[in-house]
Amino acid sequence: MTKYVYKFGDGTAEGDGTQKNLLGGKGANLAEMARLGLPVPAGFTISTDCCIDYMKSGDYPDTLEAEVEKALAQTEEIMNMKFGDPEDPLLVSCRSGARKSMPGMMETVLNVGLTTQTIPGLIKKTDNERFVWDSYRRLIQMFADVVMEKAEGFEPEEGEEIRAQLDGIMDQMKEEKGYSGDTDFTADDLKILSDRFKDKVKEVLGTDFPDDPKTQLWQAIGAVFKSWNGKRAVSYRRIEGIPDEWGTACNVQSMVFGNMGDTSATGVAFTRNPATGENKFYGEWLPNAQGEDVVAGIRTPNPLNDETKNEQNEHLQSLEQFMPEVYKQLVEIRNTLEKNYQDMQDLEFTIQENRLFMLQTRVGKRTGLAALNMAMDMHKEGLIDDKTVVTRVTPAQLDEMLHPLVDPEAEKTAKVIAKGLPAGPGGASGQIVFSSAEAVEWYKNGKEVILVREETNPEDVEGMRAANAILTARGGMTSHAALVARGWGKCCIVGAGELKIDAIGKKLTVDGETYKEGDVFTLNGTKGFVYADRLPMMDATENPRLQDFMAIVDKHRPMKVRTNAETPKDVQLAKDFGAQGIGLFRTEHMFYGEGAEKPLFLLRKMILCDTEQERRAALDELFPFVKEDIKKTLEIMDGLPVTFRLLDPPLHEFVPHSPENQKEIAEALNIDIDTVRRRSEALQESNPMMGHRGVRLGITYPEISEMQTRSILEAAAEMVKDNKKPLPEIMIPVTCDEKELINAREIVDRVYQEVLDKFQIKAIEFQYGTMIEIPRACLIADKMAEHAEFFSFGTNDLTQMTFGFSRDDIGGFMGPYLDLNILAKDPFQTIDPDGVGGLIKNAVEKGRASRPNLKIGICGEHGGDAESVEFCYACGFDYVSCSPYRLPIARLASAQASIEGNNL
Amino acid sequence: MTKYVYKFGDGTAEGDGTQKNLLGGKGANLAEMARLGLPVPAGFTISTDCCIDYMKSGDYPDTLEAEVEKALAQTEEIMNMKFGDPEDPLLVSCRSGARKSMPGMMETVLNVGLTTQTIPGLIKKTDNERFVWDSYRRLIQMFADVVMEKAEGFEPEEGEEIRAQLDGIMDQMKEEKGYSGDTDFTADDLKILSDRFKDKVKEVLGTDFPDDPKTQLWQAIGAVFKSWNGKRAVSYRRIEGIPDEWGTACNVQSMVFGNMGDTSATGVAFTRNPATGENKFYGEWLPNAQGEDVVAGIRTPNPLNDETKNEQNEHLQSLEQFMPEVYKQLVEIRNTLEKNYQDMQDLEFTIQENRLFMLQTRVGKRTGLAALNMAMDMHKEGLIDDKTVVTRVTPAQLDEMLHPLVDPEAEKTAKVIAKGLPAGPGGASGQIVFSSAEAVEWYKNGKEVILVREETNPEDVEGMRAANAILTARGGMTSHAALVARGWGKCCIVGAGELKIDAIGKKLTVDGETYKEGDVFTLNGTKGFVYADRLPMMDATENPRLQDFMAIVDKHRPMKVRTNAETPKDVQLAKDFGAQGIGLFRTEHMFYGEGAEKPLFLLRKMILCDTEQERRAALDELFPFVKEDIKKTLEIMDGLPVTFRLLDPPLHEFVPHSPENQKEIAEALNIDIDTVRRRSEALQESNPMMGHRGVRLGITYPEISEMQTRSILEAAAEMVKDNKKPLPEIMIPVTCDEKELINAREIVDRVYQEVLDKFQIKAIEFQYGTMIEIPRACLIADKMAEHAEFFSFGTNDLTQMTFGFSRDDIGGFMGPYLDLNILAKDPFQTIDPDGVGGLIKNAVEKGRASRPNLKIGICGEHGGDAESVEFCYACGFDYVSCSPYRLPIARLASAQASIEGNNL
Repeated sequence: MTKYVYKFGDGTAEGDGTQKNLLGGKGANLAEMARLGLPVPAGFTISTDCCIDYMKSGDYPDTLEAEVEKALAQTEEIMNMKFGDPEDPLLVSCRSGARKSMPGMMETVLNVGLTTQTIPGLIKKTDNERFVWDSYRRLIQMFADVVMEKAEGFEPEEGEEIRAQLDGIMDQMKEEKGYSGDTDFTADDLKILSDRFKDKVKEVLGTDFPDDPKTQLWQAIGAVFKSWNGKRAVSYRRIEGIPDEWGTACNVQSMVFGNMGDTSATGVAFTRNPATGENKFYGEWLPNAQGEDVVAGIRTPNPLNDETKNEQNEHLQSLEQFMPEVYKQLVEIRNTLEKNYQDMQDLEFTIQENRLFMLQTRVGKRTGLAALNMAMDMHKEGLIDDKTVVTRVTPAQLDEMLHPLVDPEAEKTAKVIAKGLPAGPGGASGQIVFSSAEAVEWYKNGKEVILVREETNPEDVEGMRAANAILTARGGMTSHAALVARGWGKCCIVGAGELKIDAIGKKLTVDGETYKEGDVFTLNGTKGFVYADRLPMMDATENPRLQDFMAIVDKHRPMKVRTNAETPKDVQLAKDFGAQGIGLFRTEHMFYGEGAEKPLFLLRKMILCDTEQERRAALDELFPFVKEDIKKTLEIMDGLPVTFRLLDPPLHEFVPHSPENQKEIAEALNIDIDTVRRRSEALQESNPMMGHRGVRLGITYPEISEMQTRSILEAAAEMVKDNKKPLPEIMIPVTCDEKELINAREIVDRVYQEVLDKFQIKAIEFQYGTMIEIPRACLIADKMAEHAEFFSFGTNDLTQMTFGFSRDDIGGFMGPYLDLNILAKDPFQTIDPDGVGGLIKNAVEKGRASRPNLKIGICGEHGGDAESVEFCYACGFDYVSCSPYRLPIARLASAQASIEGNNL
Repeated sequence: MTKYVYKFGDGTAEGDGTQKNLLGGKGANLAEMARLGLPVPAGFTISTDCCIDYMKSGDYPDTLEAEVEKALAQTEEIMNMKFGDPEDPLLVSCRSGARKSMPGMMETVLNVGLTTQTIPGLIKKTDNERFVWDSYRRLIQMFADVVMEKAEGFEPEEGEEIRAQLDGIMDQMKEEKGYSGDTDFTADDLKILSDRFKDKVKEVLGTDFPDDPKTQLWQAIGAVFKSWNGKRAVSYRRIEGIPDEWGTACNVQSMVFGNMGDTSATGVAFTRNPATGENKFYGEWLPNAQGEDVVAGIRTPNPLNDETKNEQNEHLQSLEQFMPEVYKQLVEIRNTLEKNYQDMQDLEFTIQENRLFMLQTRVGKRTGLAALNMAMDMHKEGLIDDKTVVTRVTPAQLDEMLHPLVDPEAEKTAKVIAKGLPAGPGGASGQIVFSSAEAVEWYKNGKEVILVREETNPEDVEGMRAANAILTARGGMTSHAALVARGWGKCCIVGAGELKIDAIGKKLTVDGETYKEGDVFTLNGTKGFVYADRLPMMDATENPRLQDFMAIVDKHRPMKVRTNAETPKDVQLAKDFGAQGIGLFRTEHMFYGEGAEKPLFLLRKMILCDTEQERRAALDELFPFVKEDIKKTLEIMDGLPVTFRLLDPPLHEFVPHSPENQKEIAEALNIDIDTVRRRSEALQESNPMMGHRGVRLGITYPEISEMQTRSILEAAAEMVKDNKKPLPEIMIPVTCDEKELINAREIVDRVYQEVLDKFQIKAIEFQYGTMIEIPRACLIADKMAEHAEFFSFGTNDLTQMTFGFSRDDIGGFMGPYLDLNILAKDPFQTIDPDGVGGLIKNAVEKGRASRPNLKIGICGEHGGDAESVEFCYACGFDYVSCSPYRLPIARLASAQASIEGNNL
């Protein structure tokens, strides 16, 4: 019999903090806190397994009811109250909690167990009639929304949701009574409101609000489970790459109340500052409130203590002042938890009539900078070791630090139009838009936008994703916008209350000025400053702590990193970023961009001439340019390997299109311009990606390979003469058969001997290998490896061929493919583990079987994607190569993969 | 110790007829004949293993010399002569012989052992001075050419070959003496000629012609081995797909002489007629000649017997008349051999002074028609069983019979300009060319040519391959041209002596008329008639024997055959050709060709409109056309499965290009023509092969899939209502992930239910499956099979993606790839077993693992290629599908694969 229910409370628990997969993060941590002796309201967790079974069968497992009854009995015993008892009723909350935190994406129902039977008892016990009726109307509102409407699959029009309709009733009553806020409602008002709510619910949803505690409980549990497949949750999972199969746990826990008057409160805290990493206890709280009031961002919360007050909340009383004893107890709990978890925690607590209860602890989300600072601090404090330091900064957080900051010099003279809370650090500029839908739309059209909202809610997730930055007028550092933005390392400012936002009119007003949709703003998310202009950005990578961190990273990184670069500038930059060689030097780069006119002209001449003899003459002219270009890079990388890929693109890419260029070539070749056009057209292809390119050019025009090989080897020979240590690697692209490698090798061997003779030297150290980018090359990798000393996976092309996706043409369907979850991720961003990954694994295995010391690397763009780097490590790669700016990410991902010891 | 030498002679042999791999075909059959007690001159075979070792190390194995000495001693003993003995010298021949016959492609040296020391003894013994000196000059000629020049790697200019230079000396002497032919030379002339030859050899090649028998022997053996890697042999192997690793054996055999005067002769025979299959002993012979004189085609040979005389040789004496006793002995040998081999044999014999010697037997090459007739005859005669019958006609021979014949009605009134021997049957037309190089050149330019030559030699092989037909003025049915053409099933006429061919002037004259290069001829290769015109062709498939043969084939064919067809005409034709269903019905076919205007217009409307609503409206209009089209095919195939592939090509293929068509669409959609152009352009893709096509269209425009699905299911429903048995299969193209199949299946399930409701029927029998044509689909075939009831391999696209070869663009490199032997075969013709084949095997294995009854077929063009069909059988396919005309080939290849029980 599967055990589904895990009890906790009174200093013991059946689960513990390690059981996140089974109990969800929240449930595991509640158990852990109970074990640590912290004041956790008693309750129990129904496991994720139960959720999965429930989803599959549409019904609860047979044994669940008995388990829940037993757990409820224990909870009643610990709390010394009874669920449904008219005298002293126990109320419970039902909260979702998955393996990984999905903030606000799933449902919660509070105050379960409150019925017409139990209301009098609770009033008697609390002596607070208003509180009880307020709780009751909250239960009806939440239950109607979550359990009766959403979980039952109703899909009302916008504004017709039951939640909105009940809000309407409240607003109407406020108007009738002339009240300005919810707190003005009397107990009698709330009682009347509850009745009106129940009538409305029956009218709209066709069912009575249930008046039986057990019915409420079981329906609430079901609604929590069902919320796993709610629209928002599914959309969030898609973005975060969370599998649909995990499910959520349901935590049923005794209710405690932060809204039982002025001796009650509720709050959220971080054991260190989540934006900066500073080792200060940091949080927000509200007196006489329930938990959702803090995170909803409707009221600006109070600061936790005096030392962390900021401009927005310095006028409000801190918990430290207000309840010094409780605060002291909370500080002790903070210390206990940090010691136990050895990481920064994000806590939720409630104070019920001066008594502290811990409702949640979890590892706190943080900015990249905070992650770095905390990791380095904790390392210094002796809390964590080297390897743990490396795992404490995610590649995404590192990426965030590599993102630009607003240039402080420019900020000095720029006018701050508004200030808010620095919820997501870094800087960003963009055009302002006022709805999530528009953010997505503009983003799709290639624009950079800043999403401006009164406050955000989970429905805004996709727009937040699309925006460069997020700016809200309301909410605190723990508001939805702040949490989500921080999780993604996105620049974000919240609670900029001066902004008057008119979302319908698509404009905002501040300090008498009006800004419209499309105006450019710049945000400094590290300070919380808003500018109505585009300010210059600067590099954040010069932080010395980052350098120290990267040094620790490199100590634990067995896999090498190289870079894809060709220009002296990029090559030097990459070396500075830690490149241990060049994994991809595209010989054709010299025909593009600055200084390319002459070489490109010669290349065109070579392409458009008619005979091998003419071609050889053109190649002879081209030779010194190519050699020079290659030598520059070899010089900078002296002593480090440089992989030169022979000519890759189809020749048609280079033919002249403008009449002047055509004329110039025609004159040089002494042919007419029509012949130039005709020859150019003859080179055109239906599917150039699978056309006459790469090694296929070398097979049909061996003189081209010969010239390139000679350039590489002569450049190296000159350096050898100068007592330097060039380490060129000759890489043959687009191979699909070992005979191509044999063919190209003959040229290399011949030219090598000629170069040795010419320069009167004994040897040049070089390697000969191939790019593996055609599926067939993977399938026959054993044979390829007989003739190649190294493989470098070209995962861009390999992904194209394996999926049959032309990267230039996926625009028409990749969006729907991701939206419909046909593909979990864009395979051009992260290596597809099943298809492309399967080919790679096969190729590594076969290649090493026939040549045990085969060197293996990757030079596709995946080399700079953290998840793909982990994959490469697990496959046993010797190195990954990526663009210079991605090198730190690759280094970190590689070290983390090694520490986590992944093996596929 | 590896045994390299296998002796034979005197009724015994160390080897036998089964050891072709080791001894080569010739060696194995010499051993077999010796074992059968036939009069084989004694000798020994040096194995193919020895050749391979010799190639690898460049030297003979250490143990070879002793083995050869021993074998030579036994040969001497049997023949009662001694090699190098001045008194009674044994002469030997050294002949190549590979596993598979490669006629004329490798080398032979005769008369080895004749030296200045042994000449007197031989003269004394034979009392024929002229014969001995003639043999000597032949030895020098052959040895200088084969051993001293070719095997040593000399590459003289054309006309400068030693052979040509020696011929020049002979011609010069003929002129000096006023002789008209070789037979005019006296013994003294030949002696002088030999001296002049030796001087020339020394002068040109820088070495003396060796005067030591053993030196001659060992050099000759080496030359035979080396000829395996000669240019012609390599080129032939490439065409025939013979592996380079096989090597050749070398047969060293006692010389017997057909040129020892009028009691001597030499000949070639077939145990049945190789052109027609008629059960008559058929052959050619020449009195007082050596073997090569017959096959060289220089003299028109005599007929073997009276009943097989023809127009060309009826004036010549038959062997039956000339040497009745020897002929009788030969007939007995013929019977022995046919009984032993149970197949038609091709024999070589020599008569030395009235004594018959058998020099070779092998399975005779034959035309397709002869193969069919012989197989059916031998089956009737009880010589061979059912299964053997099936294996006796190769798919290529069957193909030949499926080729056109000249229409006999047209022939009645056409003028025969020349007659020759019917060497290769069938009919062919083409433009005449006069050199092999031109045949190749014209062929590459897409022209159909007839190669016209005085006679052909092995250097002409590539031109013969390129030609539609071959026509020679000289040579018999066993001449080089005849043998090669017959092997390939190519139309061929030889010995059309009336033709005066001027190869240099590129023209021919016959009966006072002159025909130039480029003039169109038609050949009737079955009769040997030449026409100077293009005559109509007709179908050879209506031969009733062919029907009987195919009936036997089908009895032994477990794998089904289907066809790729869409039009009622093709579908009916395919059914007549034995199709057991349709493996590929391309739904888009109705937008091309006849009657396509209206559907194409509606499709264009659908493609170029803007909203889903407009698209649905256009699809509704299109629906009845599609349904009608589908229903026609289902009706013809009533009771047989029909696989409908949903829309495959990218939409851009259909957009209108002409201004009129653009205007028409613009009016229909009520938009301007620029919008039509803009929308058309937006659909253009860089690599459409890997673009927005197949299931990707269905995912983004589900309404298109829906319309097609509805058409299929409603057509079927209407038939069900009529008590018919439609068996539609819905096939989703271009899939790469199982989620695509899940997505498309949802539509199918929904529409299915709607159709059942509409037609008030309980069920329609149908299957749902996918085309497997993307590498990734193969790699995750287990997951694909969870959602597909069948796989149909689309090997065209699969080959494109696996190799990264766009079939439209291979023109630039496929030629060189084949010429350089980088690819042994064009992978678009025959499935690449390593790469594409590996993916297929993997997919079959994984697919059946997750769905054991998964139906598997192929619908790429490989389904009509015999070798690929064998591959499919070995992989366990349920069926292959090919174009209607390839069906007989697929049926035969499938049956043969089953009989041979290939398993990969």
